[in-house]
Amino acid sequence: MTTCTVTFQPHGAEVEVPRGTLISDAATKAGLELNMPCGGQGRCGRCAVIVEEGECDRRSTTRLSPEAIEEGYALACQTAIESDLIITIPPQEKIERRLPASQRLAKIEAPPDYDASRDQTIQKYFLDIDPPSLDDNTDDLARLKRSLQAQHDIDAGSMEVSLLLLRRMASVLREAGWQVTAVLESDTWLDADGRRPRLVDIVPGDATSRSWGVAVDIGTTSNVVYLVDLLTGNVVDIASDYNGQIARGEDVISRIIYASKGDGLSELQSLVVGTINGLIRQLAERNGLSTDAIYKMAASGNSTMIHLFLGLPPESIRLEPYVTTTNQPQPVLAGELGLEINPLATVDCLPGVGSYVGADISAGVFSSGMCDLESLSLFIDIGTNGEIVLGDCDWLISCACSAGPAFEGAGVRDGMRATAGAIEEVWIDKQTLEANYRVIGDEPPRGMCGSGLISLLAEMFITGVMDKGGTLQLDLETPRLREGDHGAEYVVVWSDEGATGRDIVINKVDIDNLLRAKAAVYAGFSVLARSVGIELSMVDRILIAGAFGQYLDVENAIQIGLLPDLPREKFKFVGNTSILGSYMALLSRENRSRVAELAERMTYLELSADNTFHDEWMSAMFLPHTHIEDFPSVLELLKEK
Amino acid sequence: MTTCTVTFQPHGAEVEVPRGTLISDAATKAGLELNMPCGGQGRCGRCAVIVEEGECDRRSTTRLSPEAIEEGYALACQTAIESDLIITIPPQEKIERRLPASQRLAKIEAPPDYDASRDQTIQKYFLDIDPPSLDDNTDDLARLKRSLQAQHDIDAGSMEVSLLLLRRMASVLREAGWQVTAVLESDTWLDADGRRPRLVDIVPGDATSRSWGVAVDIGTTSNVVYLVDLLTGNVVDIASDYNGQIARGEDVISRIIYASKGDGLSELQSLVVGTINGLIRQLAERNGLSTDAIYKMAASGNSTMIHLFLGLPPESIRLEPYVTTTNQPQPVLAGELGLEINPLATVDCLPGVGSYVGADISAGVFSSGMCDLESLSLFIDIGTNGEIVLGDCDWLISCACSAGPAFEGAGVRDGMRATAGAIEEVWIDKQTLEANYRVIGDEPPRGMCGSGLISLLAEMFITGVMDKGGTLQLDLETPRLREGDHGAEYVVVWSDEGATGRDIVINKVDIDNLLRAKAAVYAGFSVLARSVGIELSMVDRILIAGAFGQYLDVENAIQIGLLPDLPREKFKFVGNTSILGSYMALLSRENRSRVAELAERMTYLELSADNTFHDEWMSAMFLPHTHIEDFPSVLELLKEK
Repeated sequence: MTTCTVTFQPHGAEVEVPRGTLISDAATKAGLELNMPCGGQGRCGRCAVIVEEGECDRRSTTRLSPEAIEEGYALACQTAIESDLIITIPPQEKIERRLPASQRLAKIEAPPDYDASRDQTIQKYFLDIDPPSLDDNTDDLARLKRSLQAQHDIDAGSMEVSLLLLRRMASVLREAGWQVTAVLESDTWLDADGRRPRLVDIVPGDATSRSWGVAVDIGTTSNVVYLVDLLTGNVVDIASDYNGQIARGEDVISRIIYASKGDGLSELQSLVVGTINGLIRQLAERNGLSTDAIYKMAASGNSTMIHLFLGLPPESIRLEPYVTTTNQPQPVLAGELGLEINPLATVDCLPGVGSYVGADISAGVFSSGMCDLESLSLFIDIGTNGEIVLGDCDWLISCACSAGPAFEGAGVRDGMRATAGAIEEVWIDKQTLEANYRVIGDEPPRGMCGSGLISLLAEMFITGVMDKGGTLQLDLETPRLREGDHGAEYVVVWSDEGATGRDIVINKVDIDNLLRAKAAVYAGFSVLARSVGIELSMVDRILIAGAFGQYLDVENAIQIGLLPDLPREKFKFVGNTSILGSYMALLSRENRSRVAELAERMTYLELSADNTFHDEWMSAMFLPHTHIEDFPSVLELLKEK
Repeated sequence: MTTCTVTFQPHGAEVEVPRGTLISDAATKAGLELNMPCGGQGRCGRCAVIVEEGECDRRSTTRLSPEAIEEGYALACQTAIESDLIITIPPQEKIERRLPASQRLAKIEAPPDYDASRDQTIQKYFLDIDPPSLDDNTDDLARLKRSLQAQHDIDAGSMEVSLLLLRRMASVLREAGWQVTAVLESDTWLDADGRRPRLVDIVPGDATSRSWGVAVDIGTTSNVVYLVDLLTGNVVDIASDYNGQIARGEDVISRIIYASKGDGLSELQSLVVGTINGLIRQLAERNGLSTDAIYKMAASGNSTMIHLFLGLPPESIRLEPYVTTTNQPQPVLAGELGLEINPLATVDCLPGVGSYVGADISAGVFSSGMCDLESLSLFIDIGTNGEIVLGDCDWLISCACSAGPAFEGAGVRDGMRATAGAIEEVWIDKQTLEANYRVIGDEPPRGMCGSGLISLLAEMFITGVMDKGGTLQLDLETPRLREGDHGAEYVVVWSDEGATGRDIVINKVDIDNLLRAKAAVYAGFSVLARSVGIELSMVDRILIAGAFGQYLDVENAIQIGLLPDLPREKFKFVGNTSILGSYMALLSRENRSRVAELAERMTYLELSADNTFHDEWMSAMFLPHTHIEDFPSVLELLKEK
């Protein structure tokens, strides 16, 4: 087997790899992190590197211009090494750190009727144990159980004790002079008929005045951790960061593909656990506690994220008929996952409904309260997939529509995530057709994020820059409309105003991608409503969840036909309902049982198996919709014009 | 810190260690295994090495003669390195492999009424699962549970599934084309009121025709494993080996001391697990099965052995008031202990009564059947400790008497274990006072094992070589009686007959050790009997358990007052009842519950807290006893003489 030496500039890292190895694999071996938002499928073009010297085999050159290839550019994930190589890794898009203001500022408190001793599964008991003597030489564990019974009236007869704890028991009891705090976990949600209590820890002295837990939202993009005082039930602090898996794929499909190769699964598992551990350490440090004093975690996220977090292979989620290993994972121990809280703490992943309606949605439906209301709610969470739930306190039906990553800025030439430098809103002058915009972080624009793109589409449509079929009107008199490399395009930012040194534009390909995405979401609404025999106009409230909702302008979204044209007061942004649900489940076994019950009874409609979906989707491909009569406010606006 | 170079001959191994390091630690660092039967306490003298060059500090020279020290001998465990050293390790006693014949030959079968489907906690179910489809996209786990319910009427709703298994589930199900065998563990002994069933494994195809378990006896000296067909309940094969911990201490006290130093505990845990794994591999290979197909283990042993096996610190067992971490360990998973059976198999350690009446005794009391009889039994297991149980189907009382290691050949100049070359029986001619003997393995003698020593004591007493106080009668006319280095001695083997090149003798110190040991055991009988207000003569049977019993001559044992002078037909050798109990517990949850219940109700009498024990012990220091009237058959024999 011939081996080749690959040198990476500017780092100077060198590795030896077999001939035929992909450049991306060589980079990983060299410990270098390449951006691969598409998960190494050769779709996004973000992993382009420059081959300075040596021979390689470019199996795909998607998104590379002939000039770029001439200059030596190659897609690291699609290029095999043929000889010794010298490679330069160009500076890559840097991930900016930005949190929705709501998450930084909110003060989250337990409901006033929260009662830790009743609601909480984690309980602490101080024990003053009689030391053993020749006349009373019961073993240590039996002695501890006896004290629990005598001093706290707890039937600890069949209490579970893990081997790891048992191994420490003799020394903890003796070093603490037989005065210890026992941390117990009692009946969790799992068994209505009662489960054996479990001894989670014993610590010296009286440690009953504080008790900690964490609620986690494992987003595909962002991970959020709430540090919760289990005695008061209040959120004490919040930390958030990008999911460390991002560099291995931006969307769930890319990550599933990555997970199926080699050690991909365990790598992704370690990455997300690493991110969460980092957040937990931050929180512990800021609040002066030991991570070992955290005795419980509740976690939510979509089904792929939960699979990767638990180390479960996610492949079947992606392949028809799209099934998970389990939608209702049993609690596991933190130590099994490598989480840096108490290794014997329970990690309780919230239940999901199916492959594409995960725990984040069950958590959202629960925490938004829609499952308690007699009137009808429509819950939506738009990301790469749009998840939709329709229902009330009696019934719930859900579906997922594959919107694609367009709303997250991927698959769009000048698209980007909602970070500093992203245009988040656009206005087009009706007379001059000149564009104006607002940029996140108030700096020169680098691209457009989802809300910016929706706003741009709406403005182009309303001002007539684009017709209802999405065709740009090149005959209009403005230099902003022109023929580009990929067909007609509209220039949003001239090169001299932006940060990239070139014009920021939207072209026909981008528009088609965006139309497909919005049509998929709207078709989801339609099919879901029709399946239960209602009209969308009967919905009493539309709950918009998730980070995307933070920036969305409802008016714009209705104008392009992404959201139904209903009275504006019916729309409500509910924020990150995934972590709220996770937090509520952490607080009480009653809440946890209700999420499980709700996930169990929520119907899942598989759109790809629904024969009306395609027609609905085609109808929604127009702006705002083929049936314009369903969008009276848009019709009115167009008439004005 | 000054470091010294230590060279070990004849191996030539060299290590660098800090000045002040013990020679034994340096040897361990060099990867050399020294025999340290006493666990590095400087008591046994077996780790003696020769310091050829360099300076050292002999902190203790127990068992080394002034001549030996002159020649350079030093106890490795008691000698600190002061400069560069060259050390010779002399050839050491080699452990011979010998198994009691009964264990090699016995054919052990389940009771005729054994019914695997009723008695066994491990059950296998073949499942022909409907593959998922778009119309039926339930998750994998729910699908498996549904099949268990539909095809086998099992309520698997709350079935426990470990994360490790869940991670494999998707691929096993698909690769097996949805035809799998589910291995379930249902209610074990723990909960009368029912515990959630647990999914132990899923394997491709129909694997229901065989089901394997192992029963283990973790003896301080020997480990025995039975391979059991759980469907028929029969023992299919047996393997046995010395406990790998022996080189770290021969008796439990030495091992406890070793465990308390540095990594001693985890080292001892690994050693015993290593021995058991070796035996399991042997059995699996011989019988053509994969070790992963073994789904259950039951284990018994004394409390120290169980603690070391589980990795529980045993220190408190040795220190007043002598308590264990737990007498009734909960089941653990094989993977937690490093055992090479299925990593998710349950390892069920049988319950003990206290620090010195362990699971081996509960197992013995159960398997010997004494707990079912209305008439009175006395159960004894003599090793370093003598464990004694007295009782019937209504009550049981137990105690442990510290006999010391004399009966195992330690603490006696020419003592050795019952291996090839050990004298196991001695006869002294009443006229000539010449000795005759039988040697294990029929080879030139190297020393005397326990049964040989008991036989020798009895013969010396009956022939008058020794009086009832244990004093050798030097005025008798035989060259075998003489004054030696340690007082009076009797020569059993002249140097030219033996294998060691020197006379094999018994001296005053040896005799005193043996008298103390036998007195402790007999005092145990007396105190136990008195505590419940009975006479020893009321006992209907005496059950002698353990390896020691295999070689013991009851007549000799009565003559020295080790066993009570009762009709000989009352004595019964019951063999290794520890593994039999373990095997029975493996077979059925009913049996397992009964052992737990029996251990729970067995009273433990702490002899060191009993104020009559010392007097009884002093009375028993004579041959056969101060109260010779309690030994009518011996009195008769002496009269004859």
